Amino acid sequence: MITKADVDAAAARIAGRVRTTPVMTVEPGVFGPAVVLKCEYTQHTGTFKARGAFNRILSAAEPTLGSGSGSGSGSGSGSGDSMTGAQRERLGPAGVVAASGGNAGLAVAYAAAQLGVAATVFVPETAPAVKVNKLRALGAVVRQVGSEFALANEAALAHAAETGALLCHAYDQPEIVAGQGTLAIELLGQAPDVDTVLVSVGGGGLAGGIAAGLDGRAKLVAVEPETIPTLHTALSKGGPVDVEVSGVAADSLGARRIGDIAYELAVRHGVHSVLVDDASIIAARKLLWDKLRIVVEHGTAAALAALATGAYQPAPNESVAVILCGANTDPSDINA
Amino acid sequence: MITKADVDAAAARIAGRVRTTPVMTVEPGVFGPAVVLKCEYTQHTGTFKARGAFNRILSAAEPTLGSGSGSGSGSGSGSGDSMTGAQRERLGPAGVVAASGGNAGLAVAYAAAQLGVAATVFVPETAPAVKVNKLRALGAVVRQVGSEFALANEAALAHAAETGALLCHAYDQPEIVAGQGTLAIELLGQAPDVDTVLVSVGGGGLAGGIAAGLDGRAKLVAVEPETIPTLHTALSKGGPVDVEVSGVAADSLGARRIGDIAYELAVRHGVHSVLVDDASIIAARKLLWDKLRIVVEHGTAAALAALATGAYQPAPNESVAVILCGANTDPSDINA
Ligand SMILES: Cc1ncc(COP(=O)(O)O)c(C=O)c1O
Ligand SMILES: Cc1ncc(COP(=O)(O)O)c(C=O)c1O
Repeated sequence: MITKADVDAAAARIAGRVRTTPVMTVEPGVFGPAVVLKCEYTQHTGTFKARGAFNRILSAAEPTLGSGSGSGSGSGSGSGDSMTGAQRERLGPAGVVAASGGNAGLAVAYAAAQLGVAATVFVPETAPAVKVNKLRALGAVVRQVGSEFALANEAALAHAAETGALLCHAYDQPEIVAGQGTLAIELLGQAPDVDTVLVSVGGGGLAGGIAAGLDGRAKLVAVEPETIPTLHTALSKGGPVDVEVSGVAADSLGARRIGDIAYELAVRHGVHSVLVDDASIIAARKLLWDKLRIVVEHGTAAALAALATGAYQPAPNESVAVILCGANTDPSDINA
Repeated sequence: MITKADVDAAAARIAGRVRTTPVMTVEPGVFGPAVVLKCEYTQHTGTFKARGAFNRILSAAEPTLGSGSGSGSGSGSGSGDSMTGAQRERLGPAGVVAASGGNAGLAVAYAAAQLGVAATVFVPETAPAVKVNKLRALGAVVRQVGSEFALANEAALAHAAETGALLCHAYDQPEIVAGQGTLAIELLGQAPDVDTVLVSVGGGGLAGGIAAGLDGRAKLVAVEPETIPTLHTALSKGGPVDVEVSGVAADSLGARRIGDIAYELAVRHGVHSVLVDDASIIAARKLLWDKLRIVVEHGTAAALAALATGAYQPAPNESVAVILCGANTDPSDINA
């Protein structure tokens, strides 16, 4: 069970390693009501995922309780530095491993490189060369395995089991969820009066972490494409189940099933679940460019679409924030 | 002569009508030294130009000294509202006029529409349909005249003389310069410790206004493309002269000669002048996208290029801000 205390600990752990991303207030009329935009797409590697990646890797390198390690060697040597020798030893020589051709893989590769540890990323053989090249440019060893993601995932699990490498899941691990949740702490520091936060949901690592980080201080609205309703379906069925995956946001929100951790957090915190259609997602992405010259990926635009379409309708004096969580997208389809 | 007092008055005049645009700090290594980015490209119509446009129009609608107008009717009825009847009467029935197929025209059209006054914008017959349509969508009457900008400009002057419409220059009017300068006041409020501000220069309305707004509280570095060195040449020749105009940034920085107001301010405040080449501008624009997922136009990237290339090299502890002043660009040439 992830709590606010876990998120606070994560925030302390990753401080100085992730960017503090800006917020801006947009006047009423552009997206309906006035809204605070949290510009997290300016984060390292273009999404919030660096938060979870740093927290996962740094946590694994901490001395375990009672291991008797000297004081002060636990929480890293400060922002921007590689890990200490003791930290690297605790993590082990095989470094970290992830299965992802997308944003999670980029973030793990980046965090590992910054911390001076090896990263192996498994992707399907069908992964586009541009994504493979980006991972390699970040210093990761890329292994192309199988014709679909599930096979790359199995290979990553086997690699972790064989080598002892630390597996970094895309969303369903406590340290990943707590790391993503640091975004909520940061937002509340910047916009303390926010009543409601809208966020897009894939496997739910981000939404779950934010629910824990907000811890009731603001309401959370979890937004999904109608074509990938993982949380929505889980809430109505009473537990995580597989759903069909399709639509414009599938590249970032395309998890087939909500994570167990995210589901538990969503239920515990009474998260409000909303669906939007693809046309609204495309329109919200375009509106953000037209009115604010901000580019985001479709998965991110889903959260804004819920506000712009009225799928989520705040009360008259409700102060709303939307998390703009990623921009790993080709902007050439947004007309100037 | 424009002073800090003029800029402060402009800030009060346009308050609530322009967006407060966000700043973010980028760690060292991305663009060389650490840097504060002022994200002014999120302003209405995609550039800072809305600041000057509102200030010019609202100033013209104020009661003149000694005109005996009742108190309280001068400074507008507040943010977001149209002008009062008294204001509109003082401005006159012909509204405002500008000559510009670019960012200045968009800003004037937007401000006029918000204030409920008519706008006429003169553009050359060669103006691209997309720009004409944008102006029309903002509610302006667009008049296409002549084969080049100079002729559209003459037509705008004639229109102002005939109809009494208020001419809004792209850079060389006191109210325009003071309006652009409000960006400096806003920046100092957000990043009070800034030592140095880098900004791109076209006709110099922005740089001049910022020089007045900073008023010595921070140093100003004025950046121009080598292919359009209007301020640089003026400083070396002892006064404004025409220069040849070419290069990737010509659409926004392509004024042929630095404005008289900007020149006077640059000399008075000891502005530091720096040139960058087109390859550096293109590279800085791409780097901003690659590392921060921010899209700007080439004219804006010039200021960042001065830092990224070392054309301007801050001292070790110098705190530097770069004004990201516009993003009216087609992002499709930035590779994802
Ligand atoms: C940009 C972006 N937004 C949202 C998500 C969804 O995050 P989560 O899977 O934690 O729900 C992702 C996941 O990859 C993402 O990359
Ligand atoms: C984006 C952008 N940057 C910079 C400038 C230059 O401004 P100025 O002409 O006031 O120097 C302009 C002018 O159009 C612009 O549109």
